[in-house]
Amino acid sequence: MNTPLVKTLFDELRKMPIIDPHTHVRAHQPVAQHLGDLLGYHYYTELSNSSRGKPVPLPDDPDARIEYVWPHLADLRGTVQFDWMMGISEAFFDIPRGDWFSKPKAEIIKRAQQVIQDKSYESKVWERSNITDVYLTNQFDEDLSGLKDKRLVPCLRTDDLVFNADKAASISRLEKFTGLAAGKDLTTWRAALTQIFDNFKSWKMGYAAVGLPPSFIIEQNTAEKAAALLPKIAKGEILDDASRRIWASFAIEEITRQCERVSAPYCLMAGADRGVYEQGVPSGQDLFRCDAHLRGYDWLLNKYANVRFPFMVVSDTAGLELAAAGWIRHNVYPMSHWWYANNPADIRRELRRRLDVLPRTKFIGFHSDGYSLEFTLPKFNTYRLQLAMVLAERIEESSIGGTVTLEPMTVESALELSERILLKNNATILGCR
Amino acid sequence: MNTPLVKTLFDELRKMPIIDPHTHVRAHQPVAQHLGDLLGYHYYTELSNSSRGKPVPLPDDPDARIEYVWPHLADLRGTVQFDWMMGISEAFFDIPRGDWFSKPKAEIIKRAQQVIQDKSYESKVWERSNITDVYLTNQFDEDLSGLKDKRLVPCLRTDDLVFNADKAASISRLEKFTGLAAGKDLTTWRAALTQIFDNFKSWKMGYAAVGLPPSFIIEQNTAEKAAALLPKIAKGEILDDASRRIWASFAIEEITRQCERVSAPYCLMAGADRGVYEQGVPSGQDLFRCDAHLRGYDWLLNKYANVRFPFMVVSDTAGLELAAAGWIRHNVYPMSHWWYANNPADIRRELRRRLDVLPRTKFIGFHSDGYSLEFTLPKFNTYRLQLAMVLAERIEESSIGGTVTLEPMTVESALELSERILLKNNATILGCR
Amino acid sequence: MNTPLVKTLFDELRKMPIIDPHTHVRAHQPVAQHLGDLLGYHYYTELSNSSRGKPVPLPDDPDARIEYVWPHLADLRGTVQFDWMMGISEAFFDIPRGDWFSKPKAEIIKRAQQVIQDKSYESKVWERSNITDVYLTNQFDEDLSGLKDKRLVPCLRTDDLVFNADKAASISRLEKFTGLAAGKDLTTWRAALTQIFDNFKSWKMGYAAVGLPPSFIIEQNTAEKAAALLPKIAKGEILDDASRRIWASFAIEEITRQCERVSAPYCLMAGADRGVYEQGVPSGQDLFRCDAHLRGYDWLLNKYANVRFPFMVVSDTAGLELAAAGWIRHNVYPMSHWWYANNPADIRRELRRRLDVLPRTKFIGFHSDGYSLEFTLPKFNTYRLQLAMVLAERIEESSIGGTVTLEPMTVESALELSERILLKNNATILGCR
Repeated sequence: MNTPLVKTLFDELRKMPIIDPHTHVRAHQPVAQHLGDLLGYHYYTELSNSSRGKPVPLPDDPDARIEYVWPHLADLRGTVQFDWMMGISEAFFDIPRGDWFSKPKAEIIKRAQQVIQDKSYESKVWERSNITDVYLTNQFDEDLSGLKDKRLVPCLRTDDLVFNADKAASISRLEKFTGLAAGKDLTTWRAALTQIFDNFKSWKMGYAAVGLPPSFIIEQNTAEKAAALLPKIAKGEILDDASRRIWASFAIEEITRQCERVSAPYCLMAGADRGVYEQGVPSGQDLFRCDAHLRGYDWLLNKYANVRFPFMVVSDTAGLELAAAGWIRHNVYPMSHWWYANNPADIRRELRRRLDVLPRTKFIGFHSDGYSLEFTLPKFNTYRLQLAMVLAERIEESSIGGTVTLEPMTVESALELSERILLKNNATILGCR
Repeated sequence: MNTPLVKTLFDELRKMPIIDPHTHVRAHQPVAQHLGDLLGYHYYTELSNSSRGKPVPLPDDPDARIEYVWPHLADLRGTVQFDWMMGISEAFFDIPRGDWFSKPKAEIIKRAQQVIQDKSYESKVWERSNITDVYLTNQFDEDLSGLKDKRLVPCLRTDDLVFNADKAASISRLEKFTGLAAGKDLTTWRAALTQIFDNFKSWKMGYAAVGLPPSFIIEQNTAEKAAALLPKIAKGEILDDASRRIWASFAIEEITRQCERVSAPYCLMAGADRGVYEQGVPSGQDLFRCDAHLRGYDWLLNKYANVRFPFMVVSDTAGLELAAAGWIRHNVYPMSHWWYANNPADIRRELRRRLDVLPRTKFIGFHSDGYSLEFTLPKFNTYRLQLAMVLAERIEESSIGGTVTLEPMTVESALELSERILLKNNATILGCR
Repeated sequence: MNTPLVKTLFDELRKMPIIDPHTHVRAHQPVAQHLGDLLGYHYYTELSNSSRGKPVPLPDDPDARIEYVWPHLADLRGTVQFDWMMGISEAFFDIPRGDWFSKPKAEIIKRAQQVIQDKSYESKVWERSNITDVYLTNQFDEDLSGLKDKRLVPCLRTDDLVFNADKAASISRLEKFTGLAAGKDLTTWRAALTQIFDNFKSWKMGYAAVGLPPSFIIEQNTAEKAAALLPKIAKGEILDDASRRIWASFAIEEITRQCERVSAPYCLMAGADRGVYEQGVPSGQDLFRCDAHLRGYDWLLNKYANVRFPFMVVSDTAGLELAAAGWIRHNVYPMSHWWYANNPADIRRELRRRLDVLPRTKFIGFHSDGYSLEFTLPKFNTYRLQLAMVLAERIEESSIGGTVTLEPMTVESALELSERILLKNNATILGCR
């Protein structure tokens, strides 16, 4: 590794502002109120659960959550997940990571809590992170009309209208929120959906999004069958698997039409197998399948040629398949490095592929997926270091190959490219305001 | 990266002649006649189509094709695809890549056209590329008896006899070309096929080849069913999917028998999903599935133990599965880095795997897949740089591990190995003349 | 590459003792008795078979086996497989690798045979390898009560009770070995199984293990159906595929219960497709599928929450899926780099992933899979070099990123981590004595 060159790039990347195009940050409480909100992030609870050899249920109380994870932290040293917590500690708490293992637990907790409870805390996190925009994950019946902070971008998560329509009581929630009898017929359901999208549009939404199971195949021409399913869902029946796929296909198409109507992208997040690990902590029960392919989206992507589809995959195996789709399809935009694929080895490979084969305008660099604003900075730093390594390698390759072989790359042009994928593409693809 | 060592290797690799074992070069017009022939290569038209956010049909006129891609070229800077065009510009047009973005478009086009239209152009491309052999892609009813240039190696592309037998009107074309009533019965169809192979053999063919869809499973004992399908194909009926698989299985086996008869390899090119992106430009509508496996070929590979099967995969995911097949099977030869898998990250990984686990006689380094001879050199240069990086790493590893751990590698032995996979193996595996 | 740093790490790693947690070493003859035992290892016979262009049956005689592989050795130079043989030659025979290609064959064979036949040979291999524990692969009807060498750890390979129950004549062997009428009913079969596990427990077993085909899905509630299959198996009938899956599911669950009873791990080795290459040499007929996923184990892993499941995959594609399972599941332990995935490129990627996302207590570094004790050292050296490269990279990254980005790593802490995954985790996960 050309460490001076990587360091030069990394230091420059760290000076850039951050747009975080997908998070689970709470609109009205972006930062933690308790250290247990941070150590209770599923990355720590699940690793603690998996470290202890036998499953132990996760407590709700934030103090108890700290106790839940604390004994296992030493075993997590060296992992990226733990690095994110340590980055928070160093950047916002001013507690060096070494202190976590050399000072008493009570002292660390006390120092962290003091910082978190200080009234300057939220603004400190914003400032030290240099974040300009944070995309949220909002339910269809959230009222965001009071949201004043323009850095927070509402995004409509549609899972509760699609795969979870039955279990999430979506019809009664729709009826309550819109005042329309959404369970009566598809026409009224569509009217309720239109109202939801009008709301989000008025709040300057970023995009709609949906999580999709591995190798989902969207069924065509489902309206008639969906009409028959609507009363069942409205009554609270749980759908069988085949019916679930039909309703999901129908709802995805309807939501895509709404995206077309209001000119919003529909972000597809493909590949998670939900709830397969019974003894897992909340958000720590999902895995993926390495054989998950993307062929089942062709019909939707072809039919709705005017809708932009930012596209994430949870597996590493679908990485090149997604890059190829972004390469030839005009409306597929490979997005970031998601969940299990968000680790240095897989980031580096996927990033290099995208830089090598995609128009620089066709992909989005990174998002944090954080549940609290504090995670944005350390997660971006993990990515920035891998980006710096990939760019340094490209700079060295271009110095060897000469202009007859490849585009010359300098620190300056590498940073221009980074700005494109980390900042500008969010604006052009997602419509960042 | 040990840049001096990589540069030493790269510079030596560039001095080697090139055998290009798979191209779509036109037998009677190997080089471009117009800049639009080069900028009209699907790599540029598809990336332009995918860059503009909405699909626009591709014009036929070569000048109009230049207009089609030109506005998008800036967004392609830094991609390998664009590097190939720039390599052509630098190596054959003597136009530095910087000029493309600093000089007027009209000037670049004019300078390029002047070079292309000069009568020395074709020989200049041959000489500057230092190409000794170029394998072609020929249809069964091409007449290559007049082909004088011994550097051009006829290869029989069999897709129109296999998966496209119905849509490509293969029976009437066979009848017209051979004078035999190929649609009458399988015996006559086989006689026509024999004539085709005799022709190609007399032209000193390289190999027969066929493109195969993802996870194709060859059906056994299909002659009787194929006999029933033949009249339908002859009449121009379009086969249903099940019938298509039966006919394809039958035809593949018959062609394999012909390969055995004339001692030619049968090159299997597995994994492309044709025509899935409706709005794509020509040759820009195909993708692949990451779950495509190779288990469906076992029966064929086992049964025809005397036929050599050079084998390409379009996906990255089947890379190790293919390497493992080349490792234990005596008649499978992993070949090059094809299409979407032909990018630096995937080349480097796959190449390292093959070097580490395969007998050095068992795989073929690289082919260009170019539609015009100009693409051979820049595509080989992309590969050569990755090869130089992989070899430099191996040299460094051997200096660390010592002879007790791994084979010492020097620049000299690395180049000997390169000559083996890039030149000699084409002769031993493909029968390069 | 930072070669001095990699060398420092590699040299330190080579000083560590070795625990080899999975081998096929013979309990009563751990080392070779003839050079043909080593050159007859399937890695050499299969590569020789695959190198000669046409299949030739493998002779049984060890001298004849040497003749079988010898002509092909030159083509294997540079492969890891050949490096293992050369490592043996250098480390134990004191024959430099260069001599194999510069001295007469007869001389090499004679020198090697002299060393092998010397009575100090076995102890020399143990000492020079610095091996403290070697896990074996034992059949259920092996009698290991006389095994005196405490470095040899019995492990119960259960394939002959599971997928091969019919072909391996498991019932008659069970009856002969236990004296119980195992074919009479499931109760007696279970009693026989209990006796087997009691035996292995008394011999201080390491673990039970089973090989599983690609994408195997364990069927639930199979006892009734298994009861109907038992008499068929007892009579020597060969099961159809559906029945085989039922019996296998039943047997896996019963064995898992025994593992729970005696507190032994059940090592799952997933993904090999057995016998697909007809002309292959023994142990050289198996391949894998790149689409093999791990979803079919969820039910077993969830239900037997108290059993530890060390888990290997033969494919590269399931690597991240396995890492994710080890990340959230409390009883899945990703293990080593198995078979086709045991090559430098795939080791390096997988190792980096595991270091980055898994608690350091959750995975096992490496095993040799060797058939003779001599292979342990050179195979570990291949791994150690890749480990050194991964750790050096991490050390450099941490020097660039600073403590705000990632855990500082030094040579000392890197070696501590190595000791954890190579030595300590064998004790905590596998119960190394």
